[in-house]
Amino acid sequence: MPDIRHALSTRRADDFAAWYQEVVSAADMAEESGVRGCMVIKPWGYGIWERMQRLLDERIKATGHDNCYFPLFIPLANFEREAAHVEGFAKEMAVVTHHRLIADGKGGLIPDPEARLEEPLVVRPTSETIIGDAMSRWVRSWRDLPLKLNQWANVVRWEMRTRMFLRTSEFLWQEGHTAHEDADDARAHTLRTLEIYRAAAEEDFAIPVIAGEKPENERFPGAVETWSIEAMMQDGKALQAGTSHYLGTNFAQASDIRFQDRDGGEQLCHTTSFGMSTRMVGGVIMTHGDDDGLRVPPAIAPWQVVILPMLRDNDGDAAVRDYCEGLRAGLAGQTTLGEKLRVLLDDKPGKAATKRWDWVRKGAPVIVEVGPRDVENGVVSLLRRDGLWDTATGKPAFQSPSRDLAMQTVPSILDDMQNAMLVTARERRDANIARDVADMDALDAIFGDDKRYPGWAEVQWSRPTGSDLDRVVAMLKERKLTFRNVPLHARPADGICLFTGKPAIERIYVARAY
Amino acid sequence: MPDIRHALSTRRADDFAAWYQEVVSAADMAEESGVRGCMVIKPWGYGIWERMQRLLDERIKATGHDNCYFPLFIPLANFEREAAHVEGFAKEMAVVTHHRLIADGKGGLIPDPEARLEEPLVVRPTSETIIGDAMSRWVRSWRDLPLKLNQWANVVRWEMRTRMFLRTSEFLWQEGHTAHEDADDARAHTLRTLEIYRAAAEEDFAIPVIAGEKPENERFPGAVETWSIEAMMQDGKALQAGTSHYLGTNFAQASDIRFQDRDGGEQLCHTTSFGMSTRMVGGVIMTHGDDDGLRVPPAIAPWQVVILPMLRDNDGDAAVRDYCEGLRAGLAGQTTLGEKLRVLLDDKPGKAATKRWDWVRKGAPVIVEVGPRDVENGVVSLLRRDGLWDTATGKPAFQSPSRDLAMQTVPSILDDMQNAMLVTARERRDANIARDVADMDALDAIFGDDKRYPGWAEVQWSRPTGSDLDRVVAMLKERKLTFRNVPLHARPADGICLFTGKPAIERIYVARAY
Repeated sequence: MPDIRHALSTRRADDFAAWYQEVVSAADMAEESGVRGCMVIKPWGYGIWERMQRLLDERIKATGHDNCYFPLFIPLANFEREAAHVEGFAKEMAVVTHHRLIADGKGGLIPDPEARLEEPLVVRPTSETIIGDAMSRWVRSWRDLPLKLNQWANVVRWEMRTRMFLRTSEFLWQEGHTAHEDADDARAHTLRTLEIYRAAAEEDFAIPVIAGEKPENERFPGAVETWSIEAMMQDGKALQAGTSHYLGTNFAQASDIRFQDRDGGEQLCHTTSFGMSTRMVGGVIMTHGDDDGLRVPPAIAPWQVVILPMLRDNDGDAAVRDYCEGLRAGLAGQTTLGEKLRVLLDDKPGKAATKRWDWVRKGAPVIVEVGPRDVENGVVSLLRRDGLWDTATGKPAFQSPSRDLAMQTVPSILDDMQNAMLVTARERRDANIARDVADMDALDAIFGDDKRYPGWAEVQWSRPTGSDLDRVVAMLKERKLTFRNVPLHARPADGICLFTGKPAIERIYVARAY
Repeated sequence: MPDIRHALSTRRADDFAAWYQEVVSAADMAEESGVRGCMVIKPWGYGIWERMQRLLDERIKATGHDNCYFPLFIPLANFEREAAHVEGFAKEMAVVTHHRLIADGKGGLIPDPEARLEEPLVVRPTSETIIGDAMSRWVRSWRDLPLKLNQWANVVRWEMRTRMFLRTSEFLWQEGHTAHEDADDARAHTLRTLEIYRAAAEEDFAIPVIAGEKPENERFPGAVETWSIEAMMQDGKALQAGTSHYLGTNFAQASDIRFQDRDGGEQLCHTTSFGMSTRMVGGVIMTHGDDDGLRVPPAIAPWQVVILPMLRDNDGDAAVRDYCEGLRAGLAGQTTLGEKLRVLLDDKPGKAATKRWDWVRKGAPVIVEVGPRDVENGVVSLLRRDGLWDTATGKPAFQSPSRDLAMQTVPSILDDMQNAMLVTARERRDANIARDVADMDALDAIFGDDKRYPGWAEVQWSRPTGSDLDRVVAMLKERKLTFRNVPLHARPADGICLFTGKPAIERIYVARAY
């Protein structure tokens, strides 16, 4: 086997965390901003997020949610109304206390003591309370229900240890908020939005996920039920990739969201909320990246095809440019994955080989190089990001289709690649789930040694609550493990609980997690 | 003339400000949030903003700008580096001083004194300083230039007197930031982005604007030149609708944005910035609204056609629904203004007439009603928002084309409406600009009495600077007038300055303003 000279210096198998940071930087996706806990999302990272946004937004709109926008600032009084909610967020909130700066007399500025706010404002960590306030004005009768809203916004949770995309003090997300006539309708909607997330993750981001309910200890502060989609990263750890909450009447009570029901009586609404964030960009990296950098699924690639003309600063350049422009126009007129192809002709200055590796690290699905000889022969040099290396020679696996053939086949290459990325990730995940774990010793045999087990365990449990659950969670915590979720689609329980020894009532996933 | 019973209670001519508030509320666009100075943007208002965003975003991307995202919070030290910039914004900034809340012992919460930030953070009022910081890392050589970035974000300027869309403490906007090799390139780019705004305003929002340079006293804090597009509202006041700034090397100096030039030397970049905000939604209302509510130009209407089935809760409903669904599908497959038609079949409960007037107030360009008799006759009842009333009868001017004809003609109706709205607004504006104003007495004759003059004056001036300009600005201020801009395309000056009596060197617009 030839030694392949990969495009990154760190390999996934050697140090996954360092590899992740290297991809973020080598693919030019984001960087530290100098502002504590906040990152700068650079054009390529933001372009991927914009694609994810657009596809998810279409799914959210197609299920009848209307986008709107609510204030960044939440008065403290709003927050105080839901006790569990406050409890969950108070420790990590940015608080605005002044509305003006004045000179400090030493050449600097300080908050003006004369401009102190009577009531401090919190920078939203999530918007249940402020949107609940609006719902209490907007909902009058059962005819106004269900009310289905969505917001694209930035939120702030003051994090002490941050990691780009995965955990930052400020992040971007979509938060959906709905109000319903009764628990049944609200619960059904909670699962409907969970399904939006499953579909977006799998069909658009090519990230296989398991949809299920989080155990009691992992619920959103103030929720009655929290559901999630969970994805397995290439190091075997779990990433909570989207959550959907049934909030019961807790927030309706706090915000006084009442309606006149079909019988003329007055009732509290049942509400739900659901959110997915820029964290998913991290999920794309850790699901699809390889030792050459990122690989972006075609559906969310800002550019699906990058054409690199090999220019020599001589008379031949014009012919190469024309040929490339013809290719670009031909491809851009075609459709793949339900949309027009996104094709970039990158003629910025720089050596073609350097630019090729930059685009490999960024994970553009298809790279097409064109030099004078390609023009003469009527061909192009085509490189698929999902089949970068000729393993026989250790060199890049260029194909040389005719330009016409390339124009015809690239749409289906992209389509295949999108599907194959999901299949590959799903096979890897399924191969790394230990099932039928008999007891704690068996669990320890899997996770207990120093080598990280690269996967999850599906175990049976008795769904303990309260302090019983706390004891079980502590047992896992000792082992650096967490519960992920109780999957929606699982075999029925048929054994005893791994933790309590009681008859099991369902199955739950256990894993290390981000 | 029959008495037309308009759909609003306030008429523009009676009280423009009250009319504006009534449209915002009657078209269900936005409302007060209960958070000081912040509004809630409701689905219809946000939907219009999303359309404006998408079209403007395409124009910004087409001119080579990349979207990215920078932190919400700016450390005070960053701000302090550009003196004029600080001076301009310090008085209206939200300041974050704590990162945690704790119980106050009385059932409430207070900022935790133990969690005070060492350095307060400012909530961005604009991002020149934080983006300049990133530019100083990203720009190394002339090969990296021009660097063209854009961000869609929320910003906060603590306003004491707020007005929905027009002036709110938090608002949404797009801010572009670019860096260039020299003044010529940066200045040329400043005009290029001004042209993006002109095109978006006129071609997409149907708002005619005058592009020109702001006088010295109206410059963005820290800018060398500020250019704007100015639109005339129906009350004759001016709305500054977008600004583009040439920043010289001021911010490059403050943020240390240097590059190696073509000769190997080191130089400061010349930077620019440009922004357009949700304020423009207010501009759409005040340009196109009438005494029946809002009129949305088709290019930015979330729904261009709204189909209202007249249902009777009987067996005939199925036929009406089918007929409407056929109409919807037929229209949705067609193209207007370069995009697929956006068609809503609104079958929510409620009386058809009530729903009709709701959509009239919202300004949907075309409303189509379908009852059992229309189905029998194979026709539809079509109402154009720009020709709502039959002035002979004082009743809504329904047309009854066959369903097939409606499907064929609606795309061109929308296209015509888009063009006609711009033409109408431009004619109104041009009819309300007083030219060749000879002296201050003539100006006072126009603006001086209690009746507001519904327009602008184009005057000649000598472009005074410094304290001379201050005196002139004070003269205008006494009259509640402001300078708008020195238009790019104007007849050369040929007279004397209205204010200084010196030979005039150019023309400038004077108006009351928002």
